[in-house]
Amino acid sequence: MLSSVAVEKHQSVVEVGDLKIGGDELIIMGGPCAVESREQLLEAAIEVQKRGGNILRGGAFKPRTSPHSFQGLGEEGLKLLAEAREKTGLKVVTEVMDSEDINLVNQYADILQIGSRNMQNYGLLKNLGKVDTPVLLKRGYSATIKEWLLAAEYIITHGNPNVILCERGIRTFETATRNTLDLNAIALIKEVANLPIIIDPSHGTGKRSLVTPLAKAGVTAGADGVIVEMHPNPEEALCDGGQSLTPQGFSELVRSLERIAKAVDKKLAI
Amino acid sequence: MLSSVAVEKHQSVVEVGDLKIGGDELIIMGGPCAVESREQLLEAAIEVQKRGGNILRGGAFKPRTSPHSFQGLGEEGLKLLAEAREKTGLKVVTEVMDSEDINLVNQYADILQIGSRNMQNYGLLKNLGKVDTPVLLKRGYSATIKEWLLAAEYIITHGNPNVILCERGIRTFETATRNTLDLNAIALIKEVANLPIIIDPSHGTGKRSLVTPLAKAGVTAGADGVIVEMHPNPEEALCDGGQSLTPQGFSELVRSLERIAKAVDKKLAI
Amino acid sequence: MLSSVAVEKHQSVVEVGDLKIGGDELIIMGGPCAVESREQLLEAAIEVQKRGGNILRGGAFKPRTSPHSFQGLGEEGLKLLAEAREKTGLKVVTEVMDSEDINLVNQYADILQIGSRNMQNYGLLKNLGKVDTPVLLKRGYSATIKEWLLAAEYIITHGNPNVILCERGIRTFETATRNTLDLNAIALIKEVANLPIIIDPSHGTGKRSLVTPLAKAGVTAGADGVIVEMHPNPEEALCDGGQSLTPQGFSELVRSLERIAKAVDKKLAI
Amino acid sequence: MLSSVAVEKHQSVVEVGDLKIGGDELIIMGGPCAVESREQLLEAAIEVQKRGGNILRGGAFKPRTSPHSFQGLGEEGLKLLAEAREKTGLKVVTEVMDSEDINLVNQYADILQIGSRNMQNYGLLKNLGKVDTPVLLKRGYSATIKEWLLAAEYIITHGNPNVILCERGIRTFETATRNTLDLNAIALIKEVANLPIIIDPSHGTGKRSLVTPLAKAGVTAGADGVIVEMHPNPEEALCDGGQSLTPQGFSELVRSLERIAKAVDKKLAI
Repeated sequence: MLSSVAVEKHQSVVEVGDLKIGGDELIIMGGPCAVESREQLLEAAIEVQKRGGNILRGGAFKPRTSPHSFQGLGEEGLKLLAEAREKTGLKVVTEVMDSEDINLVNQYADILQIGSRNMQNYGLLKNLGKVDTPVLLKRGYSATIKEWLLAAEYIITHGNPNVILCERGIRTFETATRNTLDLNAIALIKEVANLPIIIDPSHGTGKRSLVTPLAKAGVTAGADGVIVEMHPNPEEALCDGGQSLTPQGFSELVRSLERIAKAVDKKLAI
Repeated sequence: MLSSVAVEKHQSVVEVGDLKIGGDELIIMGGPCAVESREQLLEAAIEVQKRGGNILRGGAFKPRTSPHSFQGLGEEGLKLLAEAREKTGLKVVTEVMDSEDINLVNQYADILQIGSRNMQNYGLLKNLGKVDTPVLLKRGYSATIKEWLLAAEYIITHGNPNVILCERGIRTFETATRNTLDLNAIALIKEVANLPIIIDPSHGTGKRSLVTPLAKAGVTAGADGVIVEMHPNPEEALCDGGQSLTPQGFSELVRSLERIAKAVDKKLAI
Repeated sequence: MLSSVAVEKHQSVVEVGDLKIGGDELIIMGGPCAVESREQLLEAAIEVQKRGGNILRGGAFKPRTSPHSFQGLGEEGLKLLAEAREKTGLKVVTEVMDSEDINLVNQYADILQIGSRNMQNYGLLKNLGKVDTPVLLKRGYSATIKEWLLAAEYIITHGNPNVILCERGIRTFETATRNTLDLNAIALIKEVANLPIIIDPSHGTGKRSLVTPLAKAGVTAGADGVIVEMHPNPEEALCDGGQSLTPQGFSELVRSLERIAKAVDKKLAI
Repeated sequence: MLSSVAVEKHQSVVEVGDLKIGGDELIIMGGPCAVESREQLLEAAIEVQKRGGNILRGGAFKPRTSPHSFQGLGEEGLKLLAEAREKTGLKVVTEVMDSEDINLVNQYADILQIGSRNMQNYGLLKNLGKVDTPVLLKRGYSATIKEWLLAAEYIITHGNPNVILCERGIRTFETATRNTLDLNAIALIKEVANLPIIIDPSHGTGKRSLVTPLAKAGVTAGADGVIVEMHPNPEEALCDGGQSLTPQGFSELVRSLERIAKAVDKKLAI
C-alpha cells in the first residue's frame, strides 16, 4: 500500500494553506452539523475562530438517512462557508457526496470531506484522486482498518496523496452511545500508515458531555486533531443538536486540548 | 414510508419482462462474480439457463476493496452480458456503481444492482429514481433494517417504485463465515414493507457448502428468490471462487428449492 | 475436538427417555419463560401437550440482568415442573445456573439447560460432565461458533457426551429485533460437528410474529428441533411476554413445522 | 441502581490496604497472564515492584476457551502469589471462577477478579456480595454498559460495596486487534456511576505495541488505573505472550503514565 510506513511516496503531513496536519501541531475543526442560514453560520464561525479553532466545518450537502430530512442548502451553503472564511480567516472543510459535485465544492472548500457512508464509493474516491485538494476521509461506520486504508489507497493511487483520515465511531451492540469511538484504530494507524488522522468525538459518542473527554483521549492516543460539532444554539439545530458543543463548551475543549497537547509533545496550531 | 405496508402507492410485485418478483413464483439468479471473458460468461449463462435459473448475474463494474484488484471489464463486460441474454433468453442483472454509468448500464441490464457499499450513496439512489428499470438494492453490510428501507425510499420518492431488496449478510464478530446472513430481516421486511426481497447466500456465508442450506432457509423465511454465484470452474475464478457453486451444485440448489417452494405455497418461475 | 465429525466417541443423537434428538424426528419444546405459579404452569403444560409439543420448558432459576427483577421460584418451581410432567407426560427442560444447584435440578429435570450468559462458566460446564443427564447448551450471545463447540467440549471431556446445542440469537447492531438468530451457524454446525442442534426463535427475534417464520427457516437449515416461549396469557407474563406465543399461535407453529418437516425428510416426534 | 451517581450509599473510592482506587492516585497493576512457576512469578513480581507497579496480577485459575489448554496451577499458584506479595510488598489481584473457590482465593488475594466470561454468572456475583474483599469486575466482552452496571449491582445489593470496574475490550467486526478497547465506556461510567474504573489495554488490543498508547488514552478519558500483562520473557509465556509487555516496556508504560497523570491532575500511587 502507498500509505504504508514501508513506503514513502506520499506525504505524512498534509498542508492546508499554512496549516500542517500530521506534524507536531494539533488542529481543531469546529462548526455546525449543517449550514442552516447566513446568521447561524457566521455566528458559529466567529465563535470557532475567537475560541481557538483552526478550521470551520459545516455541511452544505447532507447525507441524510431519510429522504424526507433536511438535505442541506447546496451551493448556497457553500457560498456562506466562503463568506465565513473571508470574515474569520478560518479554513473550510465540507462534504462532497457525488463525483459530479467535486468541481463545485472544490471551488469553495479547503478540505473535501468524504462521509462515512461514502467511504467505499469507489467512483467518488477515484475522482478525488484527480484533484490535489486535501481529502478528509471518514471511516465507514463498520469498515475494518484495512478496508479504510485501502479506500485511502484509491485516492492516492489515482493521484492525490493529500489524504487525512478521520475516525468517527464504529457500530457496535452498545446503545448508550450513538457509536463507539475506536481509539485502538488511532494507535494502530499511527503504527502502520503514513497518513495524518483526526477524530470526530461528536459522531463518535453522540453525547455532548462525552465529546471533550474523548477528544482528549484520542489526542493522547496519537490523533493529529479533532473535528467537533459546535452550534451557537444547539437546542435549535436542524441536526445533531444533542451532540453539539455550545460555544462555551468549545472553549473548554480547546483549553483541555492545550493541556493534553503538552503532555504528548504537541502544541495547538495557531 | 412509501414502502410501508400501510401505504399502497407502489408495487409489491416487480416485473422484469415476463418475470414477476414478489408473487408466488420463486426467482433464481445465478452466474459468476465477475464477467471475466466471453467464453467464461457464455458457458456460465448456458449452465444457468439449462439448470433452471431465470436471471444471469455477473459484474462488469466491480467494487473491489483494493484498487489493485481486478476492477471488471466495464462496457466490454456489459456487451458480453447482452450477448449471453440473447443466446439464452435469461434476463440480466448487473451492478452500477456511479451515477454517471446509469445510462450506460441501463442499455444492457434488465435489473440494476446496487452493491452493499453503495446502499447509502444517496446521489446514486436519487438518480436511480429517474429511470424505471427495476433496482436490486443490496443491504449495507452493517445497515439497520430501517436504514435499508429508507435507502429504498430515496429511489421510490424520486420516481422509481420498482425496488427489489436483497439481504446479503451482515457484519458480526463471527469469523467462521464471511458474513452472517440475516434471516430475521427477511421475515421482518415481509411484515412491515411492501417490497419483494431476495437473498444472496453466496456473500451471506462465503462458503460454497452453506449456500444451498441457507438459500432454502431464506425461502422458508419468506424470500421471493435467491441470487447465487456459480462459476464453470470456481477454482479459476478471478473473485469469490470459494463461495461459487459449480454447475452441478447449481442443479442441486434448484432441485432443493423446488421442493421447499412447494412447502411454502410457491413454485419456481419458468 | 471430541464433537468433530472426524471423531465418533460420542453420540450425535441424544436420547431423552423415548425421545431421540438429532435423528429424523423434529422435537418441539414449549412453555413459559418462567414458572410463575401452579395454575399458570399446569395450564401451559396442558396446552403444550395437547397442541403437539414434546418437552415443557420453564425457568425455576432465572438469570436476570437486574438483581431487582423476579429471580424465579427456585425449588418450588422445580416441583411444579415435575407435577406438570406427571400430568402431561411431557419431558422437562429447565435451567441450572450454579454448580451447587446441579444435583437439585437434576432430580426434577430431563434436560439441564445452560443459559447464554453461562456458556463460558467453565466450572459449571465441568460439573455437568459428571452427570449423564442431557445438557442443552445455549450459545453465548456473542460467542463464536468455535468457542461454542469448545464449551461443549468441556462437558464432553469431563464425561457427559449428551450435549444438545441451542442457537438463541447473537448480538448485532440491529435494534428492530432483540437479537439476530444466526442460521448460518445451524448449517455450519451440521457440517463440522457431531451434536444435535435446536433453535430458540423466541429469544432469537424477541417478537412474537417472527417466531414461526424463523422456526421454519431454522428447521430448513438443519435444526433438529425448536424451543419456544408460550404463555397462556402472554400479556400477563412476568417476563418475555412480547415474544411468547399464545396457545393458538403454538398450534400454528406445530402445523407449520409439520409441513416443513416433510420437505426436509423429517417428521414431528410424538 | 446503588452505583448511580444519584445515590451515595456505597464508596466511590475502594481501599485495598493503603491503596485508594478511584481518587486522585493512579493505580498500576502488572504481571503475567498466568502463574506458571515460582521462578517466573517471583521474577515478574520483582520487576513490577521495581519498575513502579502497585499490584501484582497473575492467574492461578484460568478460564480457557478450550479444555485442552493450560488451566492454571490452582491453589499452588495462589501460594506463589502470596509469597511474591511477601517478597515485594505488592498487593495481589487474581481471578476467582467459581463460587466454591471464593473462600480459598480470598485467603490469598487482596482483590478478587471476575473475568469477562463470568460477568453475568449471577450465582458467583451474589456470593461475592458476602465477602468484603474488593472485587475487580471485568466487563463482558459484549455486555452493554447498563448490563455491566447491573452486574455490579448484584454484588453491591448482596452486601459488598467494594466494586472496581475494568473495561477490557469489546467484540466488534475488527480483526486487526483482538478486541476494541471501549473508551467511550470510561467517560460514560465516570458520568453516571459512583464506582472506580480501570482499563486492561492488554486484552483490549491484543498487541504489545498498542498497550501503552491505549493505557495513556484510557487514563486521559478518566480511568483510575490500568492492569497490564508483563512477562519476564513474553516469547516463552504459556498464554498471551503477544500482548505482554517486557519489563523494559513496563518501565516505559509507567513513565508515560506519570506524565499523563499530571495532565489530568492525578499522580501515580506509591
